[in-house]
Amino acid sequence: MTISIITNHDNDPIPWVQSLKQVDPSLDIRIRPDDKKRADVTFALCWKQPDGVLKEYPNLECICSMGAGVDHLFNDPFFPEHLPVIRIIDPLLTRSMFEYICATALYLIRDIDRYTAQQRQSRWQVHRYATMKETTIGIMGLGKLGAYAAENLSRLGFTVRGWSNTLKHIKGVATYEADRLEPFLSGTDILVCLLPLTDQTRGLLNRTLFDHLPEGASLINVGRGAHLVEADLLAALDTGQLSRACLDVFSTEPLPADHPFWRHDRILVTPHCSSITDPDSVALQIVKNYRLMEKGAPLINQVDMARGY
Amino acid sequence: MTISIITNHDNDPIPWVQSLKQVDPSLDIRIRPDDKKRADVTFALCWKQPDGVLKEYPNLECICSMGAGVDHLFNDPFFPEHLPVIRIIDPLLTRSMFEYICATALYLIRDIDRYTAQQRQSRWQVHRYATMKETTIGIMGLGKLGAYAAENLSRLGFTVRGWSNTLKHIKGVATYEADRLEPFLSGTDILVCLLPLTDQTRGLLNRTLFDHLPEGASLINVGRGAHLVEADLLAALDTGQLSRACLDVFSTEPLPADHPFWRHDRILVTPHCSSITDPDSVALQIVKNYRLMEKGAPLINQVDMARGY
Repeated sequence: MTISIITNHDNDPIPWVQSLKQVDPSLDIRIRPDDKKRADVTFALCWKQPDGVLKEYPNLECICSMGAGVDHLFNDPFFPEHLPVIRIIDPLLTRSMFEYICATALYLIRDIDRYTAQQRQSRWQVHRYATMKETTIGIMGLGKLGAYAAENLSRLGFTVRGWSNTLKHIKGVATYEADRLEPFLSGTDILVCLLPLTDQTRGLLNRTLFDHLPEGASLINVGRGAHLVEADLLAALDTGQLSRACLDVFSTEPLPADHPFWRHDRILVTPHCSSITDPDSVALQIVKNYRLMEKGAPLINQVDMARGY
Repeated sequence: MTISIITNHDNDPIPWVQSLKQVDPSLDIRIRPDDKKRADVTFALCWKQPDGVLKEYPNLECICSMGAGVDHLFNDPFFPEHLPVIRIIDPLLTRSMFEYICATALYLIRDIDRYTAQQRQSRWQVHRYATMKETTIGIMGLGKLGAYAAENLSRLGFTVRGWSNTLKHIKGVATYEADRLEPFLSGTDILVCLLPLTDQTRGLLNRTLFDHLPEGASLINVGRGAHLVEADLLAALDTGQLSRACLDVFSTEPLPADHPFWRHDRILVTPHCSSITDPDSVALQIVKNYRLMEKGAPLINQVDMARGY
């Protein structure tokens, strides 16, 4: 019975081994490709595994994502869909995402980008700010991350609305269900995407959607790069339909050096750093799931494969 | 009985006339220098009045600052110190100041300046962020603005401490009184200056004070430019004793075009826009004070001339 860690270059496996061993020193943990006895591996801890490699593990019983999202697992056309998939739900991750959204929303309403541009020109010019209360943040996706962000942005003083597949009830937040996307968008000043990436949500941030926002609205994308039709964002910024965007996720990461987003003065690019999984904070829940799997008991934070999240 | 508005070029008097007239259309309001019958003026609404001009009003009974601060009134060596001075205390001003501090504190802990610098170089590099909880914000000055900011930054999730002349008690905030400045500073990651400008606080943000902060601390100055010894800030940034500064106030405003702050890559310059008085929001309290003055009744928000605020 072995745990194997299977990642791409984005994610250093060493701290994960250390954190898991700290919870349970008896664990047998290997790191691909140095996990030679693959028939022993029952539990795979994965981040963007190379296509098809999971086929090399004949006795796999469970696949665990190393983050809150699982879409990166399913990019693999040979993904073993019959196996249970679990993901990380971590209060620290949820909290960090909220803090990133606060930081970028305030960056937008306080015109920090304009003031830093003025600073480079030694130009002293005041712009009228919008208050939090005057600003409606619309959150798409009210799962763990989205619901927490919505409730806490409202407590902080923003006017908040949320849109989700099934209607949610969140204190201080006006909520809209799937078929009310247009009324949700029509009053949103800052649109925040926190949706899971599924066939239904891929490319949802497109020209048609932007056209339903008030003119001059802003976008914060902390979902996945593939939610956004990049050319449509550039076009909407050109026409002024959108005024600004803060992007933390991209269809190709790292963002290629020649990508126009880097040079756009109304786009803030951050390198997928909104919320970074801390292995120490999540090792216990991974070990718990590993032990539940061994016993054949129901797993925690299991993904609904029909929904895709 | 006339109100006269006496300002420098920073402050457009027209919206003030409109807002005051909306509260009470019967008011007789003039704008200097077009307030020819100066013997009729009993109430002066002032922002950085030119030196000595108040001597031209023989029947003045009250001087009202057009903002929360009053230090700009006292720069005038001919200021009539026997007259009652009142200032603006406005929930909207207090709130806007809190929102500016949130924006800049998050700008600092989320490394937005580093990411925008990286963006100009198309460089994808993640930096570990500090959470709000891991960050101690130390607020100097716990008057209306400081106490509100301290309590609300704590509610938001920051670790907050406050320092003031007399000990204050604020929910969720560790408070320090005047003689405990050093222990207050020693645990502060982001120092926020919200002090009134008095002879005691002028130049307080100097090298000696910076040396008591942990190495790499940051500064947010939203008090007055004269709180800061500018050369000491540049030296502390050079040595790394301070890592960054967000400055909204300067000893000379507008900041002169050749000032080194404009070109410093670890200073964010904003043009005194942290909190802007909205005449509509404060007209009622000014008119109230005018009527109280007429009746000879005690005024609201009166300044203690011995303290200077």
